[in-house]
Amino acid sequence: MENLAKETNSPLGPAMMRVAAELYPICRSITGNGLRESLRILQNCVPLEIREVPTGTRAFDWEVPAEWNIRAAWIKDGSGRTVVDFRDHSLHVVNYSRPIHARLSLNELRSHLFSLPERPDWIPYRTTYYRDTWGFCLPHRLLTSLADGEYEVCVDTSLEPGNLSYGELVVPGRTTDEVLFSCHSCHPSLANDNLSGMVVAAHLAASLRQRQNHLTYRFLWLPGTIGAITWLARNESVVPRIRAGLVLSCIGDSGPFTYKKSRRGDAEIDQIVSHLLSPESGDRLIDFTPIGYDERQYCSPGFNLPVGCFMRTPNGCFPEYHTSADNLDLIKPDSLSGSLAMLQRIVDVLEQNRFCQNLNPKCEPQLGRRGLYRALGGLSNTGLEQALLWVLNFSDGRHSLLDIAERSGIPFATIAQAATLLEQHELLVSETPSPTSGR
Amino acid sequence: MENLAKETNSPLGPAMMRVAAELYPICRSITGNGLRESLRILQNCVPLEIREVPTGTRAFDWEVPAEWNIRAAWIKDGSGRTVVDFRDHSLHVVNYSRPIHARLSLNELRSHLFSLPERPDWIPYRTTYYRDTWGFCLPHRLLTSLADGEYEVCVDTSLEPGNLSYGELVVPGRTTDEVLFSCHSCHPSLANDNLSGMVVAAHLAASLRQRQNHLTYRFLWLPGTIGAITWLARNESVVPRIRAGLVLSCIGDSGPFTYKKSRRGDAEIDQIVSHLLSPESGDRLIDFTPIGYDERQYCSPGFNLPVGCFMRTPNGCFPEYHTSADNLDLIKPDSLSGSLAMLQRIVDVLEQNRFCQNLNPKCEPQLGRRGLYRALGGLSNTGLEQALLWVLNFSDGRHSLLDIAERSGIPFATIAQAATLLEQHELLVSETPSPTSGR
Amino acid sequence: MENLAKETNSPLGPAMMRVAAELYPICRSITGNGLRESLRILQNCVPLEIREVPTGTRAFDWEVPAEWNIRAAWIKDGSGRTVVDFRDHSLHVVNYSRPIHARLSLNELRSHLFSLPERPDWIPYRTTYYRDTWGFCLPHRLLTSLADGEYEVCVDTSLEPGNLSYGELVVPGRTTDEVLFSCHSCHPSLANDNLSGMVVAAHLAASLRQRQNHLTYRFLWLPGTIGAITWLARNESVVPRIRAGLVLSCIGDSGPFTYKKSRRGDAEIDQIVSHLLSPESGDRLIDFTPIGYDERQYCSPGFNLPVGCFMRTPNGCFPEYHTSADNLDLIKPDSLSGSLAMLQRIVDVLEQNRFCQNLNPKCEPQLGRRGLYRALGGLSNTGLEQALLWVLNFSDGRHSLLDIAERSGIPFATIAQAATLLEQHELLVSETPSPTSGR
Repeated sequence: MENLAKETNSPLGPAMMRVAAELYPICRSITGNGLRESLRILQNCVPLEIREVPTGTRAFDWEVPAEWNIRAAWIKDGSGRTVVDFRDHSLHVVNYSRPIHARLSLNELRSHLFSLPERPDWIPYRTTYYRDTWGFCLPHRLLTSLADGEYEVCVDTSLEPGNLSYGELVVPGRTTDEVLFSCHSCHPSLANDNLSGMVVAAHLAASLRQRQNHLTYRFLWLPGTIGAITWLARNESVVPRIRAGLVLSCIGDSGPFTYKKSRRGDAEIDQIVSHLLSPESGDRLIDFTPIGYDERQYCSPGFNLPVGCFMRTPNGCFPEYHTSADNLDLIKPDSLSGSLAMLQRIVDVLEQNRFCQNLNPKCEPQLGRRGLYRALGGLSNTGLEQALLWVLNFSDGRHSLLDIAERSGIPFATIAQAATLLEQHELLVSETPSPTSGR
Repeated sequence: MENLAKETNSPLGPAMMRVAAELYPICRSITGNGLRESLRILQNCVPLEIREVPTGTRAFDWEVPAEWNIRAAWIKDGSGRTVVDFRDHSLHVVNYSRPIHARLSLNELRSHLFSLPERPDWIPYRTTYYRDTWGFCLPHRLLTSLADGEYEVCVDTSLEPGNLSYGELVVPGRTTDEVLFSCHSCHPSLANDNLSGMVVAAHLAASLRQRQNHLTYRFLWLPGTIGAITWLARNESVVPRIRAGLVLSCIGDSGPFTYKKSRRGDAEIDQIVSHLLSPESGDRLIDFTPIGYDERQYCSPGFNLPVGCFMRTPNGCFPEYHTSADNLDLIKPDSLSGSLAMLQRIVDVLEQNRFCQNLNPKCEPQLGRRGLYRALGGLSNTGLEQALLWVLNFSDGRHSLLDIAERSGIPFATIAQAATLLEQHELLVSETPSPTSGR
Repeated sequence: MENLAKETNSPLGPAMMRVAAELYPICRSITGNGLRESLRILQNCVPLEIREVPTGTRAFDWEVPAEWNIRAAWIKDGSGRTVVDFRDHSLHVVNYSRPIHARLSLNELRSHLFSLPERPDWIPYRTTYYRDTWGFCLPHRLLTSLADGEYEVCVDTSLEPGNLSYGELVVPGRTTDEVLFSCHSCHPSLANDNLSGMVVAAHLAASLRQRQNHLTYRFLWLPGTIGAITWLARNESVVPRIRAGLVLSCIGDSGPFTYKKSRRGDAEIDQIVSHLLSPESGDRLIDFTPIGYDERQYCSPGFNLPVGCFMRTPNGCFPEYHTSADNLDLIKPDSLSGSLAMLQRIVDVLEQNRFCQNLNPKCEPQLGRRGLYRALGGLSNTGLEQALLWVLNFSDGRHSLLDIAERSGIPFATIAQAATLLEQHELLVSETPSPTSGR
């Protein structure tokens, strides 16, 4: 475990906040114009491509649903006063509600109203993707204040053949081995879940486009569940190239990091994130469960990809989760930039980690002759000398550089530096094309 | 670990006590009429078959010994007063004593008398199966009270070609995979060791005969060591079908459960019993040792069967062990019925545990379309929904339902229910014939 | 872990001290007459052979350096007074210094003088094997007392084609499987590091020559690094026969034992030493690192030999390390003899440890018939009876006798005795030729 300063005062924190603020009011769903518009806003950060998949397209056991769009939704009381209006908050309407315009008694209306008695000022988040109904969400305090009588209800939505939209960006590297970053982008006005993931992914992609990379990076902004399933169905040929991946969610709050391991539990990405987490700062490592975000699909047994889920406070573990209190106040510029910095460290290890072979495996090579060892004997080895000896001894093709760092307790960066030095002196060879060799 | 109410007020407790009381006075041994009569009494509970194996029959390195029967045994003092009489207690005679009728001085007699100085009122239990001698066991208080002088000793036994008897009952199931329950039945008047095992086995067998089972159950009531060795020698063709087994001993006292694992240590039976034990109630799990009961034979390296030993207080760990104080007061109706209930729970898991294959392994299937998922999104998953996701994700042929229950923390019964539901919806298939499929 | 009385009052303690005292003043190096003379002194203990390898001989990536010899080395001040003289202490000259005779100012001289400011009365130990320079080591108190002015410096050494010397002794056993004991013998007047290893190795070899052994024992006294590399290069055909080995260093101080495991970590030698160490006495087990003594070469990935490093206080962990304070006062007769006794215990287990096959694997054999089991039943098993049952049950070719001792908690000696008894009764056979069978 290497200690990290997680909260950085990077200027990217405020920049990411501004993008989140622009995205916040939009009513996103698993299809529709809100999702499409959000992806276009992210195009200001990175040139992601917006893919459109027609309604009815098969994706394994599923099919792409009809596209949902909403123009208005409100409830007026007997006096014509608007008591709930979708224009005030995108959470007011149950997502994927079918259209209705009718007059109902409060009693008839009540079964379509959702609130949180234990949080009387918050609006809950509800969806009805696969059942043909409608509803409103409102603060419990408002619900209990509604007088008996007749109400006029209007849900002006459309559910028609259209498309499911998702964003995709590939940052090519020297090899076609891929690292996948995936974030669900289908939630309406919820900031931590998951505007945080969406904007950090965009800025991570932007930073990777600035440099030469060993690995290829693929970013996906897609609707949860159906989006990931659709992407997997359309990209089965890409799947074998995925060397590592992370689902990004809830990474804007001020909690410590939580990493949920891939289903494999011992994948390289699991080892890397575990290595970089700081338990003494409260960071937590949890085992895979098939409950959560799109790791459910990436880690389904037919794929079993090395994809974990990178979070701060996990879904369901903060009180504001899935309510109107998950707003822009809940996410912090420093938390966003700290999450970005950690992801960049993860990328740095992914770029450099490799299996090597000692080309002089019988006894140590004479490092002194090559200027790699102190001239005067009788003293303790320096850090780099020790790293050279560790890399030489354990480069038998079965220990990665990260394995050697963990076993020796020497920082990964020093181990990687030693390996590069030994490669330059032709004492070591990477088993896979080296990240610095340009192959 | 699932919490269990171990002490049940089942009416079977008193019923089992009555059978134990009927068996208690009989002088059992590894052969002879006492053993035969005991098996006949158990036939009132279940239609076990009594097998007879002739003296001299080879069984691996052993051979069936001569049959021993006893009519009387007593010691009279110089005045003709009977000071020790086998009719008072079957432990008074060293089991397998050869016949003698003689007059001896107290000094000559003494080397044939056994007592427990530290427990002066208890009679010890001693045997001499394979050495041609005789002896008496008596309370130390009585031994020290014997006056010098001549004594008349009579041991009216016979040791002649005959048979070794054991009881066997097979309860056939839909498959020929077998579960073995074995209990030693050769001890004279000792209640916990092992009338408790004998009567609980009989009542477990009776309950299994009342229902349709997936697995085949085989019960053995046999003399320790030579009985198990003889059975194994005669049934080598059955051995490969034994999927799990338990030796039952000392399950009538009021202690918590102790499970001694099979030699394999990681057999399904070991996992099941470990899962059901309640460490917080004092239940204990111990590793296999080759000291104990007939698991010594079932787990000899040439067989290495998945057979553990199910006990309450283990042999040698209660002071009454192998003395006249191991009497009917030591065993309790609730302990017997609690042991029976635990064995039935073990059977329930054995019946339902299986390896399954997810038939839709790429991404999750759409459970909502099949009515297996809540209609309204945004809430936490229910217990059964979570169980469905766990079963789907881990049904890759390498995780049993019990593995999934342990990994998820969801009760086995819920996991098994989810698996059955998924099988009904053709989303899952059992790798071995399903316990409910009737195949 | 078996408890050991580690400090013995063996008369060998004082004997080993006398040899150490004889060796102490000599100026050893990685080549030269001091090393050669030291090996000749050890020949008084055991008939080791002195091997000479010519300068320039290739050894993997290395070559044998020129031979270094020293006649004199001193510094005189302006008044002609000798302020530093090699005749006072072999550490005064930087080992492998090239010859020089010159007059220098204190300022010019200073870059060739080495001291320990934090230990002003101690002389440090420095070497310059592979760089063409010279230098003196002296107490810091003396260094700071030197007045300005001109000094006359004389280093009367030669660095010429010659030989690298090492000592080798093979004690043949009934099998050609070898146990390697290796100790670096190149340090000048340093007692714990490593006269202790040199004299204990000689006395261990002498004791093994007194008896018939199952295994073959090879002892090496060689210069660190280049000596081990040279030996390996000349003996690649011996390497496959090495079943176990120990590097011996720093075993004369009064600290508890420290065992550094082989690179494999689970080799037989690792298990044996771990088994015999006494953590409650402070003995410590540490993982392999490629920093240390010649285990660096034996455990290089191209060899990966089962060779650990046996120490008391490890190199660098006592303040006197690599200074003139590592003198004869630091090592104790009882520590030397305690180390020797522990090595003999290690040898005893190596000699007897083996994998066996139960020749009667189906059920237990009838031990009573063979006089191996108590006649009177109903009592607990004795220790030897239990050992017989453990050995029989686990002798499936996959558990060594030491595995069985550890699993059963029975002392190794009792397990070995049981195995020998079972072999005598033809119930067991060693998979490798038995140490007592004379094969």
